Amino acid sequence: MKLDRHSSVPLYAQLRELIVERIQEGVYRQGERIPSEMTLCEELDLSRPTVRQAIADLVSDGILEIQKGRGTFVAVEPERFSIPHFNALTFSFLNLSSYDDINLQPVQHMDPDPELDAAFNIPDVKHAGYWMLQWPIMFEERVYGWCTSHISAQVFPNLGQSISSGKRMIEIKSNKYAFLPIKGNVALLARPAKNREAMALEIPRRTIVLAVSGQLYGRNGSVCEHLRVVLRPDLLQLEIN
Amino acid sequence: MKLDRHSSVPLYAQLRELIVERIQEGVYRQGERIPSEMTLCEELDLSRPTVRQAIADLVSDGILEIQKGRGTFVAVEPERFSIPHFNALTFSFLNLSSYDDINLQPVQHMDPDPELDAAFNIPDVKHAGYWMLQWPIMFEERVYGWCTSHISAQVFPNLGQSISSGKRMIEIKSNKYAFLPIKGNVALLARPAKNREAMALEIPRRTIVLAVSGQLYGRNGSVCEHLRVVLRPDLLQLEIN
Repeated sequence: MKLDRHSSVPLYAQLRELIVERIQEGVYRQGERIPSEMTLCEELDLSRPTVRQAIADLVSDGILEIQKGRGTFVAVEPERFSIPHFNALTFSFLNLSSYDDINLQPVQHMDPDPELDAAFNIPDVKHAGYWMLQWPIMFEERVYGWCTSHISAQVFPNLGQSISSGKRMIEIKSNKYAFLPIKGNVALLARPAKNREAMALEIPRRTIVLAVSGQLYGRNGSVCEHLRVVLRPDLLQLEIN
Repeated sequence: MKLDRHSSVPLYAQLRELIVERIQEGVYRQGERIPSEMTLCEELDLSRPTVRQAIADLVSDGILEIQKGRGTFVAVEPERFSIPHFNALTFSFLNLSSYDDINLQPVQHMDPDPELDAAFNIPDVKHAGYWMLQWPIMFEERVYGWCTSHISAQVFPNLGQSISSGKRMIEIKSNKYAFLPIKGNVALLARPAKNREAMALEIPRRTIVLAVSGQLYGRNGSVCEHLRVVLRPDLLQLEIN
């Protein structure tokens, strides 16, 4: 890309894109200092205010970083936490061997819900409703994601009590062999966070999040768990094999 | 959420969030009309300019839509194109049975490249370089994604010529049994588009895209293909089993 002095795009905006391009192409590398304002002025025959405006914009975008007394640096992207072997069962509650390591929020019993009834394929009659389990995906005291799992109270009538009395997972699962997830079908997409999700993830409202949602199936072929997970895409990546 | 008249957050900004919340909770549904300015003024005891400002903001965010003479509607999210059974091999070139259905860009020969050499685990000596193949993921004349595949020219020395002469895939693959992908390891993340990617996807610069990248392995265990795919997250979702 070259600066075009006859363009209707102001020079500072062109310079901004030029710097972004140089970062993307590795001319300016992450964590390294970019040339000084003066050097950029001379190289590109630009005025000081033009260069200053472009740099100020990129600093406010988080692309550049000013280190006082040292110069302007290409911001280092936060290292992403990798979730290995990601698949439909990765965020399953029923697939856990223990819930000691997750910071489970109080389990709530919910009344029948049309959306969940449809997902679980439960006919439109009175039934036992659902347990809702929620827990954050944490790493070094930072929230990376937020999991919500719904489990039918018909199949697991005492789940809430069992969890609050600290029953071990192996006991909760005993005799439920046919209702434990062995496969699933989840959709993964990126979309703006809903207000509640943004609050749970501690991010600004409507930030783009990765959303994973869908159903897990037990050995008997019926839906045993419904998942709704939101993840911070700036901190996480999923490894798919 | 309730409006707080003593808050330092201006009322129009609070109302904006209240409307977003009502949409997210299904009080106002996609494609349906929201109450008129006048009705909102009365319900919430707000002035007309406050309501107008909140609505104008949400229209410019694409959350609401004004239909002339009919009222203000909750914008309908574009339906997403679903990629079923997504896995590491989904965007592989060598895994295709034919390249008739993809709009393959001119295949380029590239010199050895340190990043690719590391991925392919090719020692730092003279070697044949790579073929770079690029194609869009299209659906009804719209670009949903952009695939870049690198394949070693040592293993497929005549790939470029074979493709430009229209050789069939079955011929290209013959005798290459050990070098065809059977598994892979890709990372999926969301990040701002690079300028070139934004251009290929026809989206504004630095829009968030889904990026899938990694290596595919042949039967002999060595890397046979390197993938770099960017997808439009507003149009696509991946189904993971």
